[in-house]
Amino acid sequence: MRILIVGASGTIGTKITEALGRKHEIIRAGRNGADVSVDITSPDSIAAMYEAIGCVDAVINASGGANFKAIPELTPELNEKGIQSKLKGQVNLVLLGQEYVNDGGSFTLTTGVMMDDPIPMGASAAMANGGVKAFVKAAAIEMPRGIRINCVSPNIAEESWERLGEKFAGFTPVPAQKVARAYVKSAEGAQTGQNYEVYH
Amino acid sequence: MRILIVGASGTIGTKITEALGRKHEIIRAGRNGADVSVDITSPDSIAAMYEAIGCVDAVINASGGANFKAIPELTPELNEKGIQSKLKGQVNLVLLGQEYVNDGGSFTLTTGVMMDDPIPMGASAAMANGGVKAFVKAAAIEMPRGIRINCVSPNIAEESWERLGEKFAGFTPVPAQKVARAYVKSAEGAQTGQNYEVYH
Ligand SMILES: NC(=O)c1ccc[n+]([C@@H]2O[C@H](COP(=O)([O-])OP(=O)(O)OC[C@H]3O[C@@H](n4cnc5c(N)ncnc54)[C@H](OP(=O)(O)O)[C@@H]3O)[C@@H](O)[C@H]2O)c1
Ligand SMILES: NC(=O)c1ccc[n+]([C@@H]2O[C@H](COP(=O)([O-])OP(=O)(O)OC[C@H]3O[C@@H](n4cnc5c(N)ncnc54)[C@H](OP(=O)(O)O)[C@@H]3O)[C@@H](O)[C@H]2O)c1
Repeated sequence: MRILIVGASGTIGTKITEALGRKHEIIRAGRNGADVSVDITSPDSIAAMYEAIGCVDAVINASGGANFKAIPELTPELNEKGIQSKLKGQVNLVLLGQEYVNDGGSFTLTTGVMMDDPIPMGASAAMANGGVKAFVKAAAIEMPRGIRINCVSPNIAEESWERLGEKFAGFTPVPAQKVARAYVKSAEGAQTGQNYEVYH
Repeated sequence: MRILIVGASGTIGTKITEALGRKHEIIRAGRNGADVSVDITSPDSIAAMYEAIGCVDAVINASGGANFKAIPELTPELNEKGIQSKLKGQVNLVLLGQEYVNDGGSFTLTTGVMMDDPIPMGASAAMANGGVKAFVKAAAIEMPRGIRINCVSPNIAEESWERLGEKFAGFTPVPAQKVARAYVKSAEGAQTGQNYEVYH
C-alpha cells in the first residue's frame, strides 16, 4: 500500500512509520515533513499536500495539539489551538482527502486517553479528542467507495513520560511501539468506525 | 435559584423552562430571547449577556446547531457551523460564564444521540456533541468554587419527529418533557461530569 503518515517524525509517528515501512511505501508528512510538508491547521495546506502526492491507500495522522490550561485560565482564544489543530486539522484531513484515498482505503486519526480519564489542564485536548472520536464513528457509516475510518486513543507513551509524566499522575505509560500496532490494525485490517484504546 | 436558560423558546428549552419555572427564577435567553438576547456563536455576545444579567446559580444551554451533510458533501466550510455553534458556542458559555456562576452552581449543556447511534448526514453534529461530552467530563474535575458541569444527550424528541423524523429511521422518539427532567436533575441535583442519556 501507499500510505501517507502526517506527523511521521513524532514520538508516535516514528513507531508507526517503522511498523508500516517494512511492507508499505510511506510518505512522511509534517510541517517539516521528510517527503511532503503540511500544516494541518490550514485547509489550503492540506489541499496542496494531497494535490502534490496524489492518491494513497491509507492516510494516518499522528499530529495535532491543544493548549494545556486549567478551566479558570482557559479562554476562548487559548481553546482555539485544540479546535484548529487536534480537532479541525484531523477532520479536514478526511474531508479534503476523501477523494485522494483509493477504493477500500482508510483514514486513521488520533484521539487520546484524556477524554476518558481526565487530567488537570486537559479539558481543551479532551474536547478535541471527543470530537474526533464521535466524528469517526459517525463518518464511518457514509464514507464513499468502501473507505474506512478509525481512530487510535493512546495512553501516555513511555517515550513521552519524561516530558509529560508530571501531568499524568498515577498513569502507567505504554510503549509507543504498542500504540503503533493499533494504526497497523486500522490500515491493514478491515474494521471501521472504531476508536482503538491503547490504554494498557 | 436564579437560572439562565439559553434556547428557552425552543422545543426542548420550553419544557425545561416549564419544569424549572415552577420553583426558580428563570432568565430566558436566545437570539430573540424573551429576557436577554445572545448569539452563542459570538464570544462578545456571550460576554455582553453575562454582563447584563449578572450572577446566576445555574446556566442551561438548549441551543446550538450544525449542518446536516453526508461526508462526501461535507466541506470544512459547512462543518464550521457545528464548530462555531454547537461546539464552541457551548464551551464558550462555560469559559466566559464561570465567573458569573455562584459557588456550588452548575452548567448544563446539550449533546445528542447522534454521537452514539450515528445517522446519515450526522457527522458534523456528532463531532460537536462528542467534543462537548468530553469537555464536560474533563472540565468537571477542575471547575472553580464547587461549580458543577453536566450535559444532557437527548434522543430525537416526539415534538421534533414531524420535522426531523425522516432523518432518524427506526428511532423511537422521547417526549421533550422527559428530556427536560435530565436538566432538572443536573441543576437541582449534586452530580458533576455526567452526560445524561435520555434515549428511552
Ligand atoms: N505522546 C503521547 O504520549 C500521546 C498520548 C496520547 C495522544 N497523543 C497524541 O498523538 C499525537 C502525536 O503525539 P506525539 O507525542 O507523537 O507528537 P510529537 O512527538 O510532538 O510529534 C508531532 C508530529 O506532528 C508533526 N506536526 C506537529 N504540528 C503539526 C501541524 N500543525 N501540521 C502537520 N504536522 C504537524 C510534527 O512534525 P513537524 O514539527 O515537522 O510539523 C511531528 O512529526 C498528538 O495528537 C498527541 O496529542 C500522544
Ligand atoms: N429536538 C430534538 O429532538 C433534539 C434531539 C437531540 C439534541 N437536540 C439538541 O438540543 C438543542 C435544542 O434543540 P431544539 O430542537 O429544542 O431546538 P429549537 O426548537 O430549534 O430551538 C432552538 C433554541 O435555541 C435558540 N437559538 C438558536 N440559535 C441560537 C444562537 N446562535 N444563540 C443563542 N440561541 C440560539 C432559539 O431561539 P432564537 O431563535 O431566539 O435564537 C431557540 O430558543 C440543540 O442543540 C439540538 O441539536 C435536539
